[in-house]
Amino acid sequence: MNQIATAPASVEPAVLAARLADERAPDIVEALNAEAAEVAAAILLSLPQERAVEVLDQPELDCAADIVEMLPRDRIAGYLSAMSADRVTDLFREIEEPGRSDLRGRLDAETRGAVDRLSAYGEESVGSLMTTEFVTVPGNWTVRQTLEHVRHVEKTRETIYAIFVLDPRTGALTKSVPLRRLISGEPDDNVLSVAPGRRPLAVSPTASREQAARLIRKYDLLALPVVDAVGHVIGIVTVDDMIDAMIEKQTQDVQRFGGMEALPEPYMDIGFLTMIRKRAGWLCALFLGEMMTATAMQGFEGELEKAIVLTLFIPLIMSSGGNSGSQATSLLIRALALHQVRLRDWWRVAVREIPTGIVLGAILGLIGVVRIVVWQKAGLYDYGPHWPLVAATVGAALVGIVTFGSLAGSMLPFLLQRIGFDPATASAPFVATLVDVTGLVIYFSVALLILRGTLL
Amino acid sequence: MNQIATAPASVEPAVLAARLADERAPDIVEALNAEAAEVAAAILLSLPQERAVEVLDQPELDCAADIVEMLPRDRIAGYLSAMSADRVTDLFREIEEPGRSDLRGRLDAETRGAVDRLSAYGEESVGSLMTTEFVTVPGNWTVRQTLEHVRHVEKTRETIYAIFVLDPRTGALTKSVPLRRLISGEPDDNVLSVAPGRRPLAVSPTASREQAARLIRKYDLLALPVVDAVGHVIGIVTVDDMIDAMIEKQTQDVQRFGGMEALPEPYMDIGFLTMIRKRAGWLCALFLGEMMTATAMQGFEGELEKAIVLTLFIPLIMSSGGNSGSQATSLLIRALALHQVRLRDWWRVAVREIPTGIVLGAILGLIGVVRIVVWQKAGLYDYGPHWPLVAATVGAALVGIVTFGSLAGSMLPFLLQRIGFDPATASAPFVATLVDVTGLVIYFSVALLILRGTLL
Repeated sequence: MNQIATAPASVEPAVLAARLADERAPDIVEALNAEAAEVAAAILLSLPQERAVEVLDQPELDCAADIVEMLPRDRIAGYLSAMSADRVTDLFREIEEPGRSDLRGRLDAETRGAVDRLSAYGEESVGSLMTTEFVTVPGNWTVRQTLEHVRHVEKTRETIYAIFVLDPRTGALTKSVPLRRLISGEPDDNVLSVAPGRRPLAVSPTASREQAARLIRKYDLLALPVVDAVGHVIGIVTVDDMIDAMIEKQTQDVQRFGGMEALPEPYMDIGFLTMIRKRAGWLCALFLGEMMTATAMQGFEGELEKAIVLTLFIPLIMSSGGNSGSQATSLLIRALALHQVRLRDWWRVAVREIPTGIVLGAILGLIGVVRIVVWQKAGLYDYGPHWPLVAATVGAALVGIVTFGSLAGSMLPFLLQRIGFDPATASAPFVATLVDVTGLVIYFSVALLILRGTLL
Repeated sequence: MNQIATAPASVEPAVLAARLADERAPDIVEALNAEAAEVAAAILLSLPQERAVEVLDQPELDCAADIVEMLPRDRIAGYLSAMSADRVTDLFREIEEPGRSDLRGRLDAETRGAVDRLSAYGEESVGSLMTTEFVTVPGNWTVRQTLEHVRHVEKTRETIYAIFVLDPRTGALTKSVPLRRLISGEPDDNVLSVAPGRRPLAVSPTASREQAARLIRKYDLLALPVVDAVGHVIGIVTVDDMIDAMIEKQTQDVQRFGGMEALPEPYMDIGFLTMIRKRAGWLCALFLGEMMTATAMQGFEGELEKAIVLTLFIPLIMSSGGNSGSQATSLLIRALALHQVRLRDWWRVAVREIPTGIVLGAILGLIGVVRIVVWQKAGLYDYGPHWPLVAATVGAALVGIVTFGSLAGSMLPFLLQRIGFDPATASAPFVATLVDVTGLVIYFSVALLILRGTLL
């Protein structure tokens, strides 16, 4: 791995550009990301246009929209028209009006048309992820003609994943021929002679990215054609774009599981106010939910006054419910995402989680009881004359709460999917909050059952 | 997408096999995964050997090891020798002795050698992920010779990602030529005439999978050559194997973030006892850690008795600290994983998280104070004669605890990385536990400060 040492900002952009010009585009991106947007724009301008376009084509370039807006208006059209249309579309999404309309007007007609078409697709759709650079040939061509065509377009396409063979009459996609099969064909045979037997897998531009990702993953595809209603190829989703989308989704999922809104940019690039906004929403919602615990405890005020010893174990018992819930939620989020479990399997999961919760609760309950017995016998703390009953309360409450936590935590992702949300919206703090309130009620109910007539 | 309807188990395996024979291998895998291992093995035996091998080559096949062990010994060697060596190695990892030695003895010498070499690499290394099927040509060949060679091996290799050109003298990797460039070359020119200028990126077999994944992702590679100390190509990591590894890692990360050990198999395939074991460990550890809350509360027993009203807000305040910690941890786990933040940036993060925590804590504190004021004024609950001081205590404690939670949650992933662990080992429940104990101490300290002389 050749890491580029980040040059201090005082170095002239032209000098830096000369130093970077021979590096791989992703390495140039890394170097530019370490600079302020103005410096990055200056460096980009000093690079040969071809290299600059390669750099702008990398989705990893931070602040790409800011950089583009800083470029001189007379050179910008050259850059944008040479970039891939899907990347220009992504950039345009980030540029505010009137800048966007101005830039759009500078595009050549072909790029503008492509960008307009791509912009029409929703951000979560395949259409917004696809690239419009792909190679098609009519099905009445020979292998030789096809190879000639590939040689010709090779100069303008960065990567060729497969050649799509179209019905010469309707223009609809009929086959997908990998390059390696094309090479092994007889030059004068029809291109279809080297095509695999099956119809190619394809996806609609309005399908979800998730669906395209699943197909690419399952069938180990390098590129998945996107076809319209009449079977015309309008783009391809490439494996590398899909990986980028996967990583982005994974980051969002982890952040959401951590109990916040997903961030649109890397941690260090987020402004202070955006960061507060993305975190405060869920934090406040959880806080309001958790207020129910105060209400619940107010309801048990009488019991609390009579048996303060009970309060000692409240955090311990409640957190155990939250923890077991968090485990179950994380399990089911992934099982649902990977289609290992379907919505209709919810009851199978419930039937597994209840005994699991009982056993886990019993283990924790036993530890809790042992703790109370040891502290009492060793004279470390006096849990009062009814300490065996207190121990029994803690033990029994743990079984109940951990079981409830496992069940609630495992059902939550199903519930979310059922009502049309991504199961990954479920978060550990959300489950914990859900379980905390119920946990308190379970704890005090068990206490009333066991301790009535003695402590309560 | 053509989903195969799962046939009832009562259908004859041979009938099912005939029905499946023309499907894509991943679809056959899906159908087999819905069957018991014995049925799956019987179906596999009824498929043409070539198809059966394709199916066994899919890592998505559940219970592949069990299925292989059920196959008749006289046919198994044929299957295993036709499979890719990396897949056989994975399978062997799951098969217990003496079965494994027996199977190893049945392999042909070439496959056995490859499997032995691959087995020597650690499970987390590139060596265990690479495939040994790749195409190399010496650097003194022409384009025509190379194309001829590709045509020849095309029949035995499922996918050709690139041709590796070796130094004819030392056999070391010098260039990597994509197929599309080979096609556009003049047949009688040297193969190096179509090679890109740069030395190919490569990785050592002992490097981590993570490192290979990062290279593939960053440089949008379809395959990454694995070279030994003297530069000989010994394997390639393909993008589809890398995606599978990524998904597996993602699942493990989510499960670990949920506060449990990662599961080795899909949710539904895990035995009851394994499930208990994977969950009980962390649950007990967290329980033991959380016991500190009981100890802390015992220490504040005197205060509790004097001011029961304080107990009402314990769950509310503690959970807020845990929630803000969980947010910060999820943010930093991803930022570190994506190299957006480096170990040395810890103080920058701390400098961001402290004001963030103060503002978030202030927001929650304000809500908490409003709640107490409203309940008190509306007569919903009586927090006692000193209720304004109680409200102040709750508000101030929230600022302190949320700030501490954000700071502790953000520093934990750094700490883990510093001591050599994966930052993704940090879990939401772990952070919550960490923050709970300190949170209680903060709460009671604030209470002592504000309420001494009145309630306390």
